[in-house]
Amino acid sequence: MEQLRALDDTICAISTPHGIGGIAVVRVSGSKAIPIVSKAWRGINLATAKSHTAHLGTIVDNEQRPLDQVVATIFRAPHTFTGEDVIEISCHGSVWIQQQIVATLIACGCRAALGGEFTRRAFMNGKIDLSQAEAIADVIASSSKAAHKIAISQMRGDFSKMIQSLRDTLLEFCALLELELDFSEEEVEFADRAKLTNDATNILNTLTRLASSFKTGDAIKNGFPVAIVGETNTGKSTLLNRLLHDDRALVSDIRGTTRDTIDGTITIDGILFRFIDTAGIRQTSDAIENLGIERAFQKIDQAQIVIWLIDTTAPIEQIDTLAEQILPRSADKKIIAAINKIDIADPSRIQAIEDHIRQLAPQAAIAHISAKNGINVEQLETLIARTAQGDYAQSDIVITNARHYEALTLAAQSIERAIDGLRTGISGDFVAQDIRETIHHLSSITGEITTDQILGTIFSRFCIGK
Amino acid sequence: MEQLRALDDTICAISTPHGIGGIAVVRVSGSKAIPIVSKAWRGINLATAKSHTAHLGTIVDNEQRPLDQVVATIFRAPHTFTGEDVIEISCHGSVWIQQQIVATLIACGCRAALGGEFTRRAFMNGKIDLSQAEAIADVIASSSKAAHKIAISQMRGDFSKMIQSLRDTLLEFCALLELELDFSEEEVEFADRAKLTNDATNILNTLTRLASSFKTGDAIKNGFPVAIVGETNTGKSTLLNRLLHDDRALVSDIRGTTRDTIDGTITIDGILFRFIDTAGIRQTSDAIENLGIERAFQKIDQAQIVIWLIDTTAPIEQIDTLAEQILPRSADKKIIAAINKIDIADPSRIQAIEDHIRQLAPQAAIAHISAKNGINVEQLETLIARTAQGDYAQSDIVITNARHYEALTLAAQSIERAIDGLRTGISGDFVAQDIRETIHHLSSITGEITTDQILGTIFSRFCIGK
Repeated sequence: MEQLRALDDTICAISTPHGIGGIAVVRVSGSKAIPIVSKAWRGINLATAKSHTAHLGTIVDNEQRPLDQVVATIFRAPHTFTGEDVIEISCHGSVWIQQQIVATLIACGCRAALGGEFTRRAFMNGKIDLSQAEAIADVIASSSKAAHKIAISQMRGDFSKMIQSLRDTLLEFCALLELELDFSEEEVEFADRAKLTNDATNILNTLTRLASSFKTGDAIKNGFPVAIVGETNTGKSTLLNRLLHDDRALVSDIRGTTRDTIDGTITIDGILFRFIDTAGIRQTSDAIENLGIERAFQKIDQAQIVIWLIDTTAPIEQIDTLAEQILPRSADKKIIAAINKIDIADPSRIQAIEDHIRQLAPQAAIAHISAKNGINVEQLETLIARTAQGDYAQSDIVITNARHYEALTLAAQSIERAIDGLRTGISGDFVAQDIRETIHHLSSITGEITTDQILGTIFSRFCIGK
Repeated sequence: MEQLRALDDTICAISTPHGIGGIAVVRVSGSKAIPIVSKAWRGINLATAKSHTAHLGTIVDNEQRPLDQVVATIFRAPHTFTGEDVIEISCHGSVWIQQQIVATLIACGCRAALGGEFTRRAFMNGKIDLSQAEAIADVIASSSKAAHKIAISQMRGDFSKMIQSLRDTLLEFCALLELELDFSEEEVEFADRAKLTNDATNILNTLTRLASSFKTGDAIKNGFPVAIVGETNTGKSTLLNRLLHDDRALVSDIRGTTRDTIDGTITIDGILFRFIDTAGIRQTSDAIENLGIERAFQKIDQAQIVIWLIDTTAPIEQIDTLAEQILPRSADKKIIAAINKIDIADPSRIQAIEDHIRQLAPQAAIAHISAKNGINVEQLETLIARTAQGDYAQSDIVITNARHYEALTLAAQSIERAIDGLRTGISGDFVAQDIRETIHHLSSITGEITTDQILGTIFSRFCIGK
């Protein structure tokens, strides 16, 4: 387990992505940032430089040989990212120079920063709360518009403010209930039980709504899981390939687009989708092969969206057999029935299949496509995106973090106990106890209450230099 | 061929290395940098911000939605890298955010910068000369201390100053000679022929010395080529593996060390070495196989340093046979005779082999090693480094650029013609012509004279964002 480090040392790290570039930035933070950098600096006197000013100069190595011409930007505490004195050294983007500057600063008295240590200091110095710190990692990792939007909102403190406001209300409850206890001899009730119950129920509803947004939030962050199911010759892999290559990423002509991300994910309308490999579904009487097929169908359980691919040239009975497998497993999922090969089928037959599917699965959205010839694939993509959007459009704050989900669930459980207590008229003492527990769980989200272990886990997710 | 773009548009690019990091920097340069960035900026008024100041704010997309919290640093013309107004936007290091900020700035009126375009503008605006611009690419690409030292010196203008001073002297010559022509009727000689010849000879010597430093400079930049030759069972690949893995890179515990570079290169004492594959040397009577061996020996021609690996357990005659192949090909190379397997040989036999080699190749440095057990490998590395250092330690300015080498060679040729002309007493008119040609070639190095085509070639080497 990571130890909590003293805050009185000065840390440094390369903060820009690893590799060669035009420029790179080495960041230094700590009470001795200015005197340490000054040792390796040739230029104006940094000690007297104003905050938020940039200066051209030279970094020299420990033998006073010029390492690089750089621009050093000074940020003086407390109005800095970490709340400490910060210097950002913008150097040429040679890997060798970046390393040498860090090595030189370490020789001058810096310590190499751990992953996330700058952000951790921002948290320790009260510049941001814990959920904002976590959002910074999410902002950096976000690769789709939807995930980015949630992360930015959380980083800016929207979620924190909501938690803070719930916490303030609960603290007031507690104060009232505890005041009663001081006057317990006199059997007064400062806190109106009906109002308390009502307010607590509102808070419970908010907590439940937030916690239940996690399923969507997790999908937005990690990709909505989509399963394409169908028999082997239905065109499943043709469709998958087409979806993967027709990726409507906004900025695909700029370097490092989403095409760089792992295979099997696409971004449609700014939402990330992740395809679950369900290869191998095929009707057979072979027992061993059927076992494999069974396993393939089980994968449907992981999906939130099921694209049921139907071959217009296959017999209707085959559709029925597959429907028996797919539909019972898809009760809580969005189903898109994609009728494939429409370019080689008779219109009346397509209509007959559509009618048949409407009977089998009235809840399913229906698309007519030709995966092979790319007909209506764009409409199918729009349908996939709309299906996912339906899930999160209504709520503004969405939870994407399993730690927050757990804390919200526990907070909901304890306030539920408090509501029960209020209803059954038990002593304010016990109710206050449950409300204090709710406050505790909410405080763990924003980090008012935390442990080294939790902090260690959270900041180990960060890259070095942030 | 790349077209010269108008300088009146404003360019932007991600300047930091490609990928995810703590932070990334988007750079904007041009006369409209401030009004363009202001369109996407929420924060203090950038139009009235002082030069070299940094400001916390938000970049919003074209629909006014917050993209990221950023720090924008303003650099006002002319005291900027490009000589134009520059804004550096330091954002979170998400690939998605970096792309979105560039896309937003383009929508606000920027153009995506071409590779090296910022540096090209610095050159066009007279902030740096052409050899300094080329040095920036070298600084960024340099991966060893020696290569970096030369590139930094060139970037700081040491080479330019030397060329400039030669050019100034030659311009003075020309002026004197041309003055004579004005008074040609009177047959006066303003320019003392003996002094002219002497000064021109000094310049010729300098040019020749600079041009001849290219072989070393090229080796420093791209790695000193080293061939390890020896028969198959001598331990050649064992030694190579040991050298490659014992890499004494200074900062190997910091991320992205030289270990990341391609296989077959090592850095010893800050100098890069590149091993030439000479696999397959083996005594045989098979004609076809001998052809392969011939080819392997030819590779020695590419080397500057030849490590001749000798097996202490092999018969002396084998050493002689190999010596006949290696030594005639190594006349202009440094030879290190490495006697291998010393841990399993009798000391008297080792001494006998060493004596024999001293007779065969008195110029060779000799090392006693065991590649397999790592004995004296470090001493061998030191010997390799010292062998290379001997090559460049004496001269302070070393040419690493083929374009400069060519220009210096042409300049040396034309001044040689001028010297010949002075000696044979031909008309000052012709001498002046040759000196003007020398000036022309020197001017092409620093870019006083250049073409779009040359500029296109030079700046196409740069990464985008620099």
